[in-house]
Amino acid sequence: MKYPNSRRTYEKTAVHDTSRRGMSFEADINQSNLSYLSEDLAVVHKKPTPVTIVKVDYPRRSAAKITEAYFKLPSTTDYNGIYKSRYIDFEAKECHAEHSFPFSSIHPHQVEHLRAVVRHGGIAFLLLRMVMYGEDYLIKAEDFLSYYDSKQRKSLPYEWIRENGHPIPFRLQAPVDYLKVLDQVYDL
Amino acid sequence: MKYPNSRRTYEKTAVHDTSRRGMSFEADINQSNLSYLSEDLAVVHKKPTPVTIVKVDYPRRSAAKITEAYFKLPSTTDYNGIYKSRYIDFEAKECHAEHSFPFSSIHPHQVEHLRAVVRHGGIAFLLLRMVMYGEDYLIKAEDFLSYYDSKQRKSLPYEWIRENGHPIPFRLQAPVDYLKVLDQVYDL
Repeated sequence: MKYPNSRRTYEKTAVHDTSRRGMSFEADINQSNLSYLSEDLAVVHKKPTPVTIVKVDYPRRSAAKITEAYFKLPSTTDYNGIYKSRYIDFEAKECHAEHSFPFSSIHPHQVEHLRAVVRHGGIAFLLLRMVMYGEDYLIKAEDFLSYYDSKQRKSLPYEWIRENGHPIPFRLQAPVDYLKVLDQVYDL
Repeated sequence: MKYPNSRRTYEKTAVHDTSRRGMSFEADINQSNLSYLSEDLAVVHKKPTPVTIVKVDYPRRSAAKITEAYFKLPSTTDYNGIYKSRYIDFEAKECHAEHSFPFSSIHPHQVEHLRAVVRHGGIAFLLLRMVMYGEDYLIKAEDFLSYYDSKQRKSLPYEWIRENGHPIPFRLQAPVDYLKVLDQVYDL
């Protein structure tokens, strides 16, 4: 699927924007969400890292200290929330490879979660930072899933990402200004 | 605000249902959400407990062990998801008191989060288990907030809960079958 002007927007916003390099994608998304929250545009939060807590010490009454815990596999995506009355849900990934984004970076549970969100009428997508190019893309879950399910390859080729992804503009207050892209792509 | 038949439903479903006592409300809600997921009715998950991770050991390559971490205050409610294309968001509380549910049980951040969700067009509510009575109620955020903001008291009186809350039916597969209540209360 192609969207009008996608290439033009791409060239305008994202080519070799070195100022973004080295910054954490997650930190930039969190900063964007904080900005959306303070402008009262949307309510989107990152979910806490899932952890199995085994032991807790209480050295003082006020402060519990967790002394043994383990990381759990996430059963959903990292981010969800509400924008213009719509449920939105997404996973964010940094890709350090040059030619493609490997599917092994996304857990099958997360893929099935995105599929379920689409089925229930929500807005689901991936945010992808191509670190080598200094480019951020929004990829609709529907587009991602149709390529994923076709089993042509075990990764999204960079060319596919350029053709099907939607470049995300940078704004100082919202470094990954994905709401702007949602407005266009989902006609909100 | 009163809803038709609220008293009747209450008497039918919940009076001194001792079979529920002693079971964790959270476990019952999680079980309900699992059931909704497997019936493909809704996608609702509990958010992980927010934790600040300070130290991680790697005794084996495969298993990272967190050896120092602390509980963080939650900035949102515990549950959110999508049902019939609508964003839903709620906090669940067990109340062990007999005469009222104290506002001190809900963090101000969570109250403001519920308010923001309503403002953005989502469905926000509280699930409240009155342990002494073996009763579960759904309370619309709008109703809760109007009482909370009136500053009449520092708790929801049980009588208010009976008048304004919506009793939640029990079903073996979904012990806190709140989707049933949403259908009626929000006309979904």
